[in-house]
Formats: sequence, structure tokens, C-alpha cells
Amino acid sequence: MNKKANTTYPINDILSKRWSPRAFADKVVEKEKLQSILEAARWSPSASNEQPWFFILGWNNDATYQKIFETLVEFNQMWAKNAPVLIISVGKQINSKDEPSSIFKYDVGQSVAHLTFQASIEGLYVHQMVGFDPDKAAELFQIPEGYEAISVMSIGYIGEPSMLHPRMQKAEKAERERKELSAFIFEEKFGKKSEII
Amino acid sequence: MNKKANTTYPINDILSKRWSPRAFADKVVEKEKLQSILEAARWSPSASNEQPWFFILGWNNDATYQKIFETLVEFNQMWAKNAPVLIISVGKQINSKDEPSSIFKYDVGQSVAHLTFQASIEGLYVHQMVGFDPDKAAELFQIPEGYEAISVMSIGYIGEPSMLHPRMQKAEKAERERKELSAFIFEEKFGKKSEII
Repeated sequence: MNKKANTTYPINDILSKRWSPRAFADKVVEKEKLQSILEAARWSPSASNEQPWFFILGWNNDATYQKIFETLVEFNQMWAKNAPVLIISVGKQINSKDEPSSIFKYDVGQSVAHLTFQASIEGLYVHQMVGFDPDKAAELFQIPEGYEAISVMSIGYIGEPSMLHPRMQKAEKAERERKELSAFIFEEKFGKKSEII
Repeated sequence: MNKKANTTYPINDILSKRWSPRAFADKVVEKEKLQSILEAARWSPSASNEQPWFFILGWNNDATYQKIFETLVEFNQMWAKNAPVLIISVGKQINSKDEPSSIFKYDVGQSVAHLTFQASIEGLYVHQMVGFDPDKAAELFQIPEGYEAISVMSIGYIGEPSMLHPRMQKAEKAERERKELSAFIFEEKFGKKSEII
């Protein structure tokens, strides 16, 4: 199975081999690797260095793992049960000037991307989900007002597509697809293709 | 000058050497490198593969560059004038089901982070800004309703801190700082430090 990105221009293997599987192997993720991927998230940039990211981490079927799992929608529970690590990302809605931030989700997204990049280096895979109940997460983890649960990540080593429910196997084996560069790299005005690409 | 991240746990050099300078060298960025960093942005993950990211790119002092520059606040204009490339990131607020998306900024942030990884691999540096006028950007580039200018990136090779206005030189040379892992990696409940770190 080759899920490597079919790129128009060359990119580093760490990026081209990254994708979001549903089949995770029954294999423990080493504590040292988790530490490194979390450290990567830490060194992400953010507006005014606000660092609006927080992560609630469950692993090895601990109580936190179980609670995160409970917040997932049924479809995601079907496959995420095989992932040895589940993490909820939480963003801080208010900046240090006590004003609502318009950029905190963007910065949490960057931090998660840094995590996925280090995960790819470690041979790990990450599948992010928005299919979970953020209100339930807030309740179960006592997330205070002013903070928002944004996504759940499943993390682990990759498994065999055959372990998945039949309706998920097709997507697991399908080629990865993205819109063409000409559809989103513009110059002069929005919608006009850049000459660079 | 050593700006390498002072990490608690090891992370890859591509991440630890990445930071956001204000001093950019007077050196053209090769078209091939721009193509690769944009390709990296393309292969970022997104909720339901919506790919809500769009980029307006100015370089080599072209008309697009000039217009992006005009949108920057005065403080950012003071240093960004040295960056050979300026890019506005734009997010799509509505998903393909015609519903307001709660996750598009998070996904645009991820895409920009992927761009910064490939930039780091290419020996380039990126400094992101929210200090710009998104309404002016919308007007100058005819950004349609339902789309939102989110950030501006300056990109180039690194320059000498001495080229900056004196009030910016201190930050340029300062050690990079982040909150401790214990301040944002939790288990059981929000605020309780994870045993992993």
C-alpha cells in the first residue's frame, strides 16, 4: 500500500509520507516518543507568543483515555479504539490582554501540526477528528470557561486495513487527494492563479 | 547567535532551528523553493479534507507584494520591507455543506505550519503576522464574502540583526521562550499535569 502524496513539486519525505490512518497497530507507543511529539507542539509559533494550546492526554487505556473515547461520535469510536493514544486539543479563547482572540484556533492548529511532524519523524501516525462532543469533554475534564476543546487526535503505529470495518477499508487504501495548487495560490486578486506555480 | 530551541526532550533540528526573525537578507528566494513550500501547505490535513486554505503571494517587489505590504501595520512595515516574499493566508468560513465551519482557522494554521516545515528544510525562515488590516486586504484583493484574510507571512533567508531598527534588535537576539510542558499537558482533568512529562 503506497499512500505517499503524489506531489507536483518535491517536498520532504516526512511530509509526503504523513497521512491520517484509521487502522492502528496493537503496539505501545514509547513514553520517550510521546515526550518528543509534545515538545514539538511546545515550540510552535503563535501570535505574540501567547501559546494558546493545551492538551489532555490519554494512553494505555488509562482513565483519561476512556473518557476521551467516550466523547467521540460512534463512527470514530469504531476505529479509534485501536489507537493507543488519544489527545484532546484545547484552545484559550481570551488573550493575555483579556480580549477575545481571533487567532487562537489557527495557533492551536499550528501546534498540532508541529506535533504531527515530529510524530512522522518518530514513525508514528496521527488521525485528527472533529467528530466528538466538546461539551461532554468540557464536563468530563472540567475545562474552564474561556477554553474550548477543538479536536481529538488518535496516535500510534500504523496497522493493517483488514482490521477495519469493511466500510472503512476503501478510504484506508485510496490514493490521497488534494486540490491543485492553481486552485489556491493566487496573485493580484483572489482567484487569479499565481505565476509561481 | 544561537536561537535553537532549548528543549526538555529532543525534537528534530528542522523544528528546533525554526524561529521567526525580523531581519531578512537581501537575497532572492528561488522559485523552486517557493513551489516546494507551497506544495507542503497543499498536503496538510483538514477536517473532511475541506482544504479551507488559500494564499495570495507577492515576491520580487511585484504589485501583489506592494499591496500586501500596504496592509501591514506600521511596526511590521519597519522590518518586513526586507523580506523578499509576503503571503496572505485566507480561510474559507463556510464548509462544503454550506454551514459555517468552526474549524477552518485551525486547518489554515496547520497548512501554514506545513509550509514553515518545508521552508525550514529549504533553509528559509518565516515570520507570521496578525498585525495587518484584513478589511484592506479584502478590498485590495477582492476577497469574496465567506472568505477571511487571517495572517501575513514574510519569508526569506535570514539577515543580520544589525540591519534592524535598534528597538527590534534585542528581541532578535533574545533566547526563545515557551511555557513549560507541565503548564499545558494534562491528564484526568484540565490543569492536572500529565505523568508523561
